[in-house]
This record gives sequence, C-alpha cells and structure tokens, in this order.
Amino acid sequence: MLRVSIVGATGYSGVELAKILLYHPEVELVDLVSKNYVGQKFSDVYPAFRGKLDVVCKELDTDELAQNSDLVFIALPTGPAQAIASELVGNGVRVVDLGADFRLDSIEDYEKWYGKEYEAESLLEEAEYNIPEIHKKNLRNVNLVANPGCYPTSVLLALAPIMDKQIVDTTGIIIDSKSGVSGAGRGLAIGSHFCEQNENFKAYKIASHRHTPEIEQELSKLCGQDVLVSFTPHLLPVKRGILSTIYLDLIEKVDAEELRQIYREYYAEAEFVQILDEGELPEIKNVVGSNACHLNLFLDERVGRLIVVSVIDNLVKGAAGQAVQNMNIMCGFDEGLGLSGFGTGV
Amino acid sequence: MLRVSIVGATGYSGVELAKILLYHPEVELVDLVSKNYVGQKFSDVYPAFRGKLDVVCKELDTDELAQNSDLVFIALPTGPAQAIASELVGNGVRVVDLGADFRLDSIEDYEKWYGKEYEAESLLEEAEYNIPEIHKKNLRNVNLVANPGCYPTSVLLALAPIMDKQIVDTTGIIIDSKSGVSGAGRGLAIGSHFCEQNENFKAYKIASHRHTPEIEQELSKLCGQDVLVSFTPHLLPVKRGILSTIYLDLIEKVDAEELRQIYREYYAEAEFVQILDEGELPEIKNVVGSNACHLNLFLDERVGRLIVVSVIDNLVKGAAGQAVQNMNIMCGFDEGLGLSGFGTGV
Amino acid sequence: MLRVSIVGATGYSGVELAKILLYHPEVELVDLVSKNYVGQKFSDVYPAFRGKLDVVCKELDTDELAQNSDLVFIALPTGPAQAIASELVGNGVRVVDLGADFRLDSIEDYEKWYGKEYEAESLLEEAEYNIPEIHKKNLRNVNLVANPGCYPTSVLLALAPIMDKQIVDTTGIIIDSKSGVSGAGRGLAIGSHFCEQNENFKAYKIASHRHTPEIEQELSKLCGQDVLVSFTPHLLPVKRGILSTIYLDLIEKVDAEELRQIYREYYAEAEFVQILDEGELPEIKNVVGSNACHLNLFLDERVGRLIVVSVIDNLVKGAAGQAVQNMNIMCGFDEGLGLSGFGTGV
Amino acid sequence: MLRVSIVGATGYSGVELAKILLYHPEVELVDLVSKNYVGQKFSDVYPAFRGKLDVVCKELDTDELAQNSDLVFIALPTGPAQAIASELVGNGVRVVDLGADFRLDSIEDYEKWYGKEYEAESLLEEAEYNIPEIHKKNLRNVNLVANPGCYPTSVLLALAPIMDKQIVDTTGIIIDSKSGVSGAGRGLAIGSHFCEQNENFKAYKIASHRHTPEIEQELSKLCGQDVLVSFTPHLLPVKRGILSTIYLDLIEKVDAEELRQIYREYYAEAEFVQILDEGELPEIKNVVGSNACHLNLFLDERVGRLIVVSVIDNLVKGAAGQAVQNMNIMCGFDEGLGLSGFGTGV
Repeated sequence: MLRVSIVGATGYSGVELAKILLYHPEVELVDLVSKNYVGQKFSDVYPAFRGKLDVVCKELDTDELAQNSDLVFIALPTGPAQAIASELVGNGVRVVDLGADFRLDSIEDYEKWYGKEYEAESLLEEAEYNIPEIHKKNLRNVNLVANPGCYPTSVLLALAPIMDKQIVDTTGIIIDSKSGVSGAGRGLAIGSHFCEQNENFKAYKIASHRHTPEIEQELSKLCGQDVLVSFTPHLLPVKRGILSTIYLDLIEKVDAEELRQIYREYYAEAEFVQILDEGELPEIKNVVGSNACHLNLFLDERVGRLIVVSVIDNLVKGAAGQAVQNMNIMCGFDEGLGLSGFGTGV
Repeated sequence: MLRVSIVGATGYSGVELAKILLYHPEVELVDLVSKNYVGQKFSDVYPAFRGKLDVVCKELDTDELAQNSDLVFIALPTGPAQAIASELVGNGVRVVDLGADFRLDSIEDYEKWYGKEYEAESLLEEAEYNIPEIHKKNLRNVNLVANPGCYPTSVLLALAPIMDKQIVDTTGIIIDSKSGVSGAGRGLAIGSHFCEQNENFKAYKIASHRHTPEIEQELSKLCGQDVLVSFTPHLLPVKRGILSTIYLDLIEKVDAEELRQIYREYYAEAEFVQILDEGELPEIKNVVGSNACHLNLFLDERVGRLIVVSVIDNLVKGAAGQAVQNMNIMCGFDEGLGLSGFGTGV
Repeated sequence: MLRVSIVGATGYSGVELAKILLYHPEVELVDLVSKNYVGQKFSDVYPAFRGKLDVVCKELDTDELAQNSDLVFIALPTGPAQAIASELVGNGVRVVDLGADFRLDSIEDYEKWYGKEYEAESLLEEAEYNIPEIHKKNLRNVNLVANPGCYPTSVLLALAPIMDKQIVDTTGIIIDSKSGVSGAGRGLAIGSHFCEQNENFKAYKIASHRHTPEIEQELSKLCGQDVLVSFTPHLLPVKRGILSTIYLDLIEKVDAEELRQIYREYYAEAEFVQILDEGELPEIKNVVGSNACHLNLFLDERVGRLIVVSVIDNLVKGAAGQAVQNMNIMCGFDEGLGLSGFGTGV
Repeated sequence: MLRVSIVGATGYSGVELAKILLYHPEVELVDLVSKNYVGQKFSDVYPAFRGKLDVVCKELDTDELAQNSDLVFIALPTGPAQAIASELVGNGVRVVDLGADFRLDSIEDYEKWYGKEYEAESLLEEAEYNIPEIHKKNLRNVNLVANPGCYPTSVLLALAPIMDKQIVDTTGIIIDSKSGVSGAGRGLAIGSHFCEQNENFKAYKIASHRHTPEIEQELSKLCGQDVLVSFTPHLLPVKRGILSTIYLDLIEKVDAEELRQIYREYYAEAEFVQILDEGELPEIKNVVGSNACHLNLFLDERVGRLIVVSVIDNLVKGAAGQAVQNMNIMCGFDEGLGLSGFGTGV
C-alpha cells in the first residue's frame, strides 16, 4: 500500500482528495495536515466523513511527513508549496502539487502574474506538468508533478486536438470560462458570502487572471508558436463545475464530421474525455462529482468560426481527481484507479 | 453475478439505482425499463452515464424481464407496481418495490389515503417492509420487499430507539419534515419549475400527506399501541435531502447522556446511522449522495420536550440506497456492499 | 420633510431601510452611518444604488446625527444601540431600534439570553414594542420604538388572533421556523459561505435562540398567562424569507370556517396581512420584497391540532419595512406610506 | 388616465408588466388576458398580488380589448401577435409588442430564423423598434412599437457608443451571453425543471439563437455596414438577469479613459444606463428588479482587444420595463415614470 498524506486537507481540493483516496485500493491515507484545524478530527470539520475518516488533523512537520509518507499531495494557496515540496522531495518523498508553484516554466512569468519572488528554481526543472490525456508523460521516475490548474484543464482538453492542425487561427483565441464558487476556496470573503453570490453572476479578473500564462504556455507548446489568448473567468452561483466556451477563427472551410473525427481519434484511449454527439450540449451537472470532461464542437459556418465547449468538475478533473490520476501514473497503477465515482446529474 | 433490472429506470429513484448498481461487485445490470424513453440510450437521457451505461431503454415486458433477471427493482409512481410485481414474483423473480404499493398492512388505509382500489391483496401478505437498522428482518427467503418511503425512513430512524422506552409521550408526536425537490419526481409540474421553486419555500399537503399512515403504522408497531402523528412536509429549494425535526413531550425528567446512550446502543451495529456529538447539528449536505442517516437529540428541559433531528438523502437512504441494502440482505451479500459512495458536503 | 438617518446602513437591514426610505414621499434621507465603510460611497458598497444614492458613509457621531436628523434608525447587532439610543433620545431625536436592545421588558431575561450586562435601564421604560397590526399603539408621542424581531413577527402575526380565545392550549405551542441566510447578516462566517450553505439545510440554536424570550413575552401578554414555547429555527438556502409552521393543540372541537372568521376579523383593517383562502399554501416567494405577511390555518381534526403557517420577508416585515411602518405611525403619516413595493414571486 | 391591457398577462413578462403598471401614476390597468387562466383571479395565479390585483383573467377578445383599452401590451410567444396587433391597431388601439413579430425588417430573415410564414407584412412597416437610449425615436404618433429582445438589449446597449467610431473591428464581434431561467418562460420543460437546472450551467442554441438576426440588424444600422456576429447564449441557474461578455478586436491603440468618455457622453442623458467606474464589475444582482443596465469596459492591451460587459434584468430592461419606457414615450409621459423600482442586490 502506498502511504499518502495531504497538506491542506481541509481546503476544498484537500477534502476532495481525502474522499477519493479513502477508497483507493492501493492507498493508505496517513497524515492530514491542516493549519486551521490542528488537533481537531477531520470528520468534525467535514461531518460527511463521520465514521469513515475520523483521524485528527496535524500541524505541518515535513520531517514527520517524510517519515510517514511515500507520496504527499500539497493543496495550498500559491507560495508555501515551494519550500514544502523542496523539503519533501529532498527527503525522498514524491509530491503532487495542486497549486501553481511549479506550473510555469518561466520564473519571470511567475513573478509577474503572481506578484511574489520565486524561491524554488532548482526544483522547478524537476517538476512535470501533466494532463494525462494530452501530455501523456511517463511519470514513473518523476518526483514532483505540477498538477494543472482548473481553468487550464478545461481549456487545454478542449483545444489540444486541433492546436497543430492548421485549421484554426491560433493567434486569436477567445476563452470565456465560468466556474462554480468552490474555485474561490474555503477562505471567507464577501464575494463567496451566500447572500452576495446566490442569484448572482459576474465576470472577474478580466484580462488579468493568473491562469492566463499557464494556458498560453501550454497552448504555445501544443502548436509550436507563441500564443496569446483572451481569457475571461466568471463566477457561477453553483458549488462546482467549470464550463469554457472557446471561440476560434477558422483558417479554411472545414467539414464538421472531419473535425469530430480528429477529436475522437485524439481521445480514443482517454476514458475520462467524452466527445458528445453532434448538437449535444455539455452541461456542468453531468460531470459534477466525476473525473470526466465532456466536450463538443459547434461549427458556425455563417461566420467562419469554431466554438468548442467543455465542462469539468473544477475540484475533480480540475484538481483532486487529476492529481490522483497523476499519482496513479507515477506509481504504475491503472490510470483511472479509484476514480470511477460520479454523480447522476440530479 | 446477480442479474438485476430496473423498471422505471429514468425516474430519479431509478437513475440513482442505476448509479449504485453499476459498480456493485455482485450485480450485473441487465434491463432498464422506461416508458418514456423506449429505444433511447440511457446515457442520452442522463449524459453523466456516457461511456459507463450506454444501454438502450426497453419497454415493459414482464416475461422478458423474468427471463433476463434474478431480481427486479420497481421504481414507479404508486399503482402499476401491484400488477408488475405480481407477474414477476409469479414467474419466480424477486422484487424490491420502491413505491408505496406494498407498504401498508391495511388495504383500507391504502384505499383511503391513495384514493384507488387495491388489487394485489394476495401478494401483500408476502411483502416485507424493512428498514434494516430497525426491523432487521431476515430476507433470505423473501421474494418481495416493500422498500420504505423517504419521509418515513427519516422519521423512523429518528424515533425507533425510544418508542418503547416510556420516556416520551407517544400519543402527541409532531413531525416537521423538509424535503428537496427531487422527492416530487421528474414529472413536469409548475411546483417543480425552476423559477417557481428557487428562492422559495413552502409547506404542502399539510395534515394529508400519504406517508402519514406509513409512519403511524410503523411507530405503532414499535411502541405497541396506536399512534397518531402530525406530519407536515415542506419543499426545500435544493435537489436532494430530507431533514425531519421531531417534537416529543417528555413523560418524566430524563438525563441527556442516558438518552444518547440508548440511541448509541440501538445503532451500535448500524454502519449507516451516525448519532452526532452533543450539540452537533445534522445538515443535509453531509448525507447527500450517501446512504447515511445523521441524527441528534436536543433536550429542552425548560419546556420538558425532546427534539430529534435527522437527515438523509431522500434518493439514497430514502429510496435507492436502502433498496440496494435490502437486496444485499435478500441475497446474503454484505449489507453495505456497493453503498460506500458519499459526498463531501461541498 | 422628515430628516432621517440610518446607523448601520450597510448591513442587510440597513440597506433595506435605505431602499425604502429613498422613495418615501415624506422623508429626506440624511446620514448613512457605517463603521466598515466610512468615507466610501454607499453605492460602491451596494452598486444597485448607483445613480440613486451616491452619498458617502459616515462614522458614528451622535452629536452630528442629532443635529442633522429628526429620526434615526439603528440597525446594529445587539449591544451598542443602548448607548447610541440614549444619546440620541437625550438630544431630542426620535429613534427606531431594529435590534434587540429594547424588546425585552425583563432585564434579567436580557442578561440571561444575550449574555451581557444591560446598560440602558432608564430608557427601557420609554421604549414601545409595536407590531402595528397587533399592538396598535399610538406612537405620536413616543421617542423610542423597539422594532420587533423577524422570527417573533412571523410568529406573533400567526397567533395573535387566537391567543385569548380559549380555543387552543397556549401552554404547549411548538414553533418550527425556517429563515433565509440574510437573517444571519453580512458578517463573514463559515455558515454563510456559499459552498457551505447552498444545497444545504439545517436547524440551529435548537431550544436556545434569543428570539425565544421575545416570543414568550408577547404571547404571554396576548393570552394573559405565562407561556413557554418550543422554538426551533432552521437555515434555508435562500436569501430572504421566513416561514413559521406552528402547532397548537385544540382544547375543543372547532369549526374551520369560524376560525378563519376570527382571523379575518382580527386583521380586517390590516393591509399587510393576508389570510389565504382555504387550502392555499403560504410561500416565501410571494412576500419577498414586500411588507406583507401571508398566513393560513390548517385544521387537522384527525389529531385535534391546529397548524398555522405564516410567511414574511425577514428584511422587510421582519425588519426594515416594519420599522418604516412604525416611523409612519410615530409621525402621523399613513401607516403604509412608502411600503407598496413588492416582488412578483418570479 | 391611460387605459391599458395586457395580453399574455400570466407569463413572466406579463406579470412583470402588471407589477410595474399597477403603481404607474398615469395608468389604469384594465384587462388581463390569459389563455390558461380564463376565469381565475390573477392573484390566485400570482399570490404576491393578493390584495393588490385581484381581477379575473379574461379570454382574448380583441373587440372588447379595443373598446376597453387605449394601449395594449402583447406578451406572447412568437406568432399570434401578428394577427392580434393587426386587429388592435386596425381598431385604433396602440400596441407595444414584447415578442419578436415586428422586430426584423426582413421578412426573409423572420421566416428563416423563426421557421414560420410571416403574415403581417403591411403592419410591419408601421412598427418602430426602439431602445430609447439608442434609437431615441419620437413615438408620439406611432401606433405599434416592437419592443427589443432581452439579449439584443443587453448587447446593443453595450456596443452602440462605439459601433461607428472606427475603434473596433465590427466584423468579428463575439458575444457570450448568460441568462436566467425566466428567459425560457413559464411553459413546463425538462430544461426548466428545478432538479435539472439547479447547480447546472450550459450553453444552448449555439450559433442558432433567434436573437442573432435582431442583433445583427441593429448593429449593422449602427455602424453603417453589414455585421455578422457569433452569439452564444447560456443558461444560468438564477431566476433573472442577463450578463453579456462581448469581445472586440481593436483596430488601433486606444486610450482607456478616452473610451470611457465616449460611453459617458453617449449615455449622458440616460438615467437607466450606468457606466461603472474603472475596474468595477457588473453583477446581475445589482440590476435585478430594476430597469437599469450596468456596463463596463475592459481594455486588454496585451492582446489588443476590448471587452465590454453589460448586465440587465431580462424581465425588466429586457422586456416589461423597456416596454413601459416605450409606452411613456408614446404617451408623452416622463420616460422613466413608474420605473423607479429596484432591488438592493441582497
């Protein structure tokens, strides 16, 4: 059994990790680290785990973690993961970081978009960014995985199959994304206050969201040239889910069925990605609680544009689920092991 | 592998059954019967099942069902299950009925509360009503289980431990229950229209809800005398969940800790029932998606009353989950097999 | 024009007051006091007021307030209103307090339920508690009105007509109330965090809510004997609205139509109270945004009990609307002036 | 007093009209026509109107309507308004049509996008399409106003000030709109069923929504050349509100403050349009219940694009409110008369 711990266990990604790992057949869940709930039972913070996971939350102690764990998930706000991952990897523990600290190749970009100094330069080169269905990296000997961001996952899965196909203009991509409130985390803020966000909807961080450089970095790699995008996130009055509507100018006339075929082939082996039938609408409810991505293509021949719509659960495929998928790959388990959970949509 | 089919597979209880049975290790899911979607793929009706359960929905044909299935779940509105169950049981197929057709011992009560003639009198005697944590019936040789109603399950689990203890006045019980909209089913109705029910709340069927005689029948058996209750259901603007707040007059002064001990002992072996810690509040979100019941006791010594609060997921412990639990008992499987799914509350 | 100010203008009751007073034909809205937003435009805090109320929020300065205002609404958490009201009334300014500081006659009760020392004893005797439809007090010479609490308003309007009629047992009243989240105010708390409260429902402060003594005090006055009640508040996943379901044991057999007639007569002159038709269900959506109270009676002859259901908007009839209604009475305006606003329910 | 009637009074636009007109100081509300509720009290269908508007709904009788009314609002699904408006205008009654039957200049477009034959050709020329803040038409002698669609209103208000300024490329406009469920009307449909749409989000009618030609027609007029757009509507799990996020390629480098100045000047006299401060986010909650449009500009210099975000209440500025605004103009009343209602956002 793989001994696994979670740093940041009581945040929304952390608790989702706990849920998935609890019944993972190859994992023994060891330490749950939570700054705010040291000494409290995990099931007192999340009573849904009562009778299932009643362990007590611990303070961060990387030495102890390293001793108890073969692999550690870090699910913290950006920043502290740099030092924690450095210590853990230095002590021979493998790490999957769910934050943004190891996603950007360019330290300059990191410091510009995240507004803080970068302090883990040496470790950064070891880190592997991996959406399994796209990058298909062999992680057996990798010690640090930079788990992709939620918005980037929804966008990259939608665009990967055509970025190098010379079908669409990769220089003018517009991404209009909508996320549930859990994406903003468990920290109290007026924008996440029930009466301020229920029956509401807004765009936020327009032209300035930190996932923009991550999206651009990966799209650029996929098409082999520098790509800039317009990325506009919005806040939905739902708990979970991201829907991205992506607009692409067609370079040439293209056949809808051929396009679909390109996507179907690209994801032929990908159990978690579903290309919907022609005209079928991706809906957030159909992926909530699961590691699935549903996507579909809409060709607007009248205006010469392709519209791709994708949906994921931001806490699963956009965070904890994909992190476990990466853990499975690191450890040689079946890629989808422990990830069969899903909701009915009701 | 047990060959299992569902009649009424595209209703809200039906789809929940499909979800649970899909990964049940001892079950092979065979026929999905749905009047409204004959010939359509189940995953077209519920795209969350895409890639998981793409079988085509069938018309009802009890002969074919009997041939293909060892056990059939019937998840239909009250009425038609009487004939269907009769045919299936007559053909040697075991049945779990999620509707109300075999729950009431008294045909008179059935006809009075449901307003239709009863037509399965001979089969009624064979039917066993079973909340496993309370009735603990041995179902190995039973061919027809009457799965308890959602409201009654939330009430009976809350009251069973004290009904025969001479602690509370069993003649003046008041039950104030609140349910999510899925309890009203998938049939279109103005009361389930989004704009009419979001940001809304109301009581309904006050003093006239059909679950009243079921609750009274079972409470009466538990305490050995005839019990009448006030039962008021309300409609919450949530998809799932039932919370029942139950008021009981104390016959004598009672110690809070003793009371808790009675409950803890009663449910000592019950993995799905959690007695919360003193002062801890049962919340719907903590049981949504799981077969759990959370409950707690609040002693109001100032007014001499005991308040019991319970929560369940109306579609799981209140329907499909408990039905599978009963199937497990009928077949000699572990009682909780296939029922470990749960949500985090987020 | 009456010069009116609000202390606590950016809280949820405060902003509702601002909305009502903005178009009140006899009122000039003068100072908006808000501790947290001193120096900021009110319409920056609540952009819905943009172009309508762009004044800057002020720090509390009772001398300045007294100079600028004829009447001040205090909409603060319990406590500070005692000193503020004392200074204002002492300076000849009339006050409507929306908090709990002047509602309880008994200082002992205040100190027991609110857990703090009471410091405005001399002023307390001047304060008048007034639900206009019930107490019908002449407030022309009153300088301090204790505006009733939200839950008590929903309960007292439901029960006032029969408390002294010897029809129901006034010693065993059970009140099961459900409120929207705005009742918990704008202060950040995990219980009001969107992801913790959406799709959720729970009871809270069972047998211990501070509105209990207020309800009991007023019910006792209405029936002329000491009344104790069971009062259980619950938190609904909606912004606004309170529904109270109240259970009363009948002393004698009673005719439903006679009962309705008692209510109709009691509220014959009350424009804001609607007795619904027989069988019609009070729904929160029908009173949201208005000063109305809808209520109905349900006689359960089977068990000898009367069930009264009432709905109000906790921020309007339960706070700001009733406060303006009281202001109108204090000033000799038409009681309903400025209070014709309502929502359609959609 | 202007005698006014509503055809389609119990639909969601109809009831909003009723609410606004009820307190309009120059209007006497006469007949409420509703096919589905003939003979029932309006306040039985919408109990929020209890004690305010208890009149009985009538069957459609254009002769009677013409006799009783000076002006009629038609709030029906597309189609029947053609005949009804023809009869009414023929009988000397003025009409505001809230549907799509008189919005498109081109009958060919109508028949292509709406899929039915057009039958009111002669009347079409008389019809005036009017967003008062943009078209500023003098309607004193106009007998038929085609009230703009909800999505088009949100888009045109956002774009009108720059369409002819040679600042943005008017040939590549992308419009990503999100609407509350009330936009789909009161007709029962699985997509508006509470359990199917709560906690959900989806795009729909991608590249095929019927408001597309209306948007293109008006944008073309504004810039003096043929404009095609990508228009993608989405369905939000809220009752009301539309937010449109609009992407425009800049033709040349432009100064943010100059841009804002263009908008401020364009709307200098427009009381219902608010240009927010730099960086301030339009939010649906801030316009719900009001006739306001909030909009803001976001210049993304990095990618050379302008993003305009607008919000309206689809039932008010997107339907009933704008219709009353047009009525006011037709009748020489103050343009904003009766339209001061708004919500606080809570």
